[in-house]
Amino acid sequence: MATRPREAASHPGGEPPEESGRISDSTVRRLSGYYRVLEELTGDGKETISSYQLAGLGGATPAQVRKDLSCFGSFGKRGTGYNVRTLRDEIRGILGLNRRWRVALVGAGNLGSALSQYKEFRKQGFEIVAIFDKSRKKIGTVWGDLEISSVESLEEVCRKKGVEIGVIAAPASASQEIAERMVRAGVKGILNFAPRKLFVPDQVVLRNVNMAIELESLSFALK
Amino acid sequence: MATRPREAASHPGGEPPEESGRISDSTVRRLSGYYRVLEELTGDGKETISSYQLAGLGGATPAQVRKDLSCFGSFGKRGTGYNVRTLRDEIRGILGLNRRWRVALVGAGNLGSALSQYKEFRKQGFEIVAIFDKSRKKIGTVWGDLEISSVESLEEVCRKKGVEIGVIAAPASASQEIAERMVRAGVKGILNFAPRKLFVPDQVVLRNVNMAIELESLSFALK
Repeated sequence: MATRPREAASHPGGEPPEESGRISDSTVRRLSGYYRVLEELTGDGKETISSYQLAGLGGATPAQVRKDLSCFGSFGKRGTGYNVRTLRDEIRGILGLNRRWRVALVGAGNLGSALSQYKEFRKQGFEIVAIFDKSRKKIGTVWGDLEISSVESLEEVCRKKGVEIGVIAAPASASQEIAERMVRAGVKGILNFAPRKLFVPDQVVLRNVNMAIELESLSFALK
Repeated sequence: MATRPREAASHPGGEPPEESGRISDSTVRRLSGYYRVLEELTGDGKETISSYQLAGLGGATPAQVRKDLSCFGSFGKRGTGYNVRTLRDEIRGILGLNRRWRVALVGAGNLGSALSQYKEFRKQGFEIVAIFDKSRKKIGTVWGDLEISSVESLEEVCRKKGVEIGVIAAPASASQEIAERMVRAGVKGILNFAPRKLFVPDQVVLRNVNMAIELESLSFALK
């Protein structure tokens, strides 16, 4: 049996490539892109799409699109292309977006506020069930229908609410300690917005969104 | 003359590797990490740091740290390590952070609001000089000391204010058109927060911050 060639995964944060079964992280990232295009086309009422069109909108080649989608079975018909709604639903399932994830947000600053109001978040199944901050001024205030809790109660509240994903929107200096406390509270995945390389046990999935690094990479290239 | 081996650059958005001179994009990203650590240590009053310590905090190996820094000349002393402040200032210069960049922000939603208030932004020399939105409700309102302009005046205002960097915090469906208008207005670099692959001419530097893709990659890995 031939083995499928694996693409090099791209990891700006420097993590080792993470794989689930045979699907590489870079394939998952392209699927995210296709998913977003298909979501939009569904909204526009479009019924079918060719691999050429999907490639153009998703930023890949048609051959890449066909290869990516072939990993999960045959969705397309020769000559007519893919059914937009069916393909969207399939990818949604593959990405784990057809279920709800219980999310805790740590850091009720500007970024935390933007994240808590980010509609896409909830739409894709990420439901913020707890918000934490260390500031006495913020603890007890209400955002949407959630009261901001003291970060000191992080483990207790996360366990009680069955939090699965932790989002770190706190200052860099506090981020490693928060990550460790999330891990102790049984969180399985962490999305880190703090500009700091975090260390977590192998069984915890870590993803980083680092705005500062992108800005500095931009500034360097423009210099 | 021996050529320096180049590392593979990591590009989640799928762009081709971008190089300025002989420094790879992945080296630049690590320099960003070291810079942040050094900034914090300067604040803490620490005077010297070894490559081991910098590696531990910056998420690289000591050999990698020494190799990265050797690209720009010799900053360290054997036995005593690097002077924190000197090294910070050197990296700041390398990354182009010792100058000011004139930035236009398009999209005055939650994300735009968080960005406009993000202190690190200004601290690193990225100064927002114009904010645009298409909503009649937002145009004319004042954020900080800036009045939100109509996106229809994008080219005119950007040219007049000498904008060099454009930040896209608008919906995905509008992002490509905004990018094209920024390019026409003479913007040299774009930081894109919209979950859409953008196409820009080669001479324009594009960086992407894609929260949704990171979340979906997290969801996939946890599934």
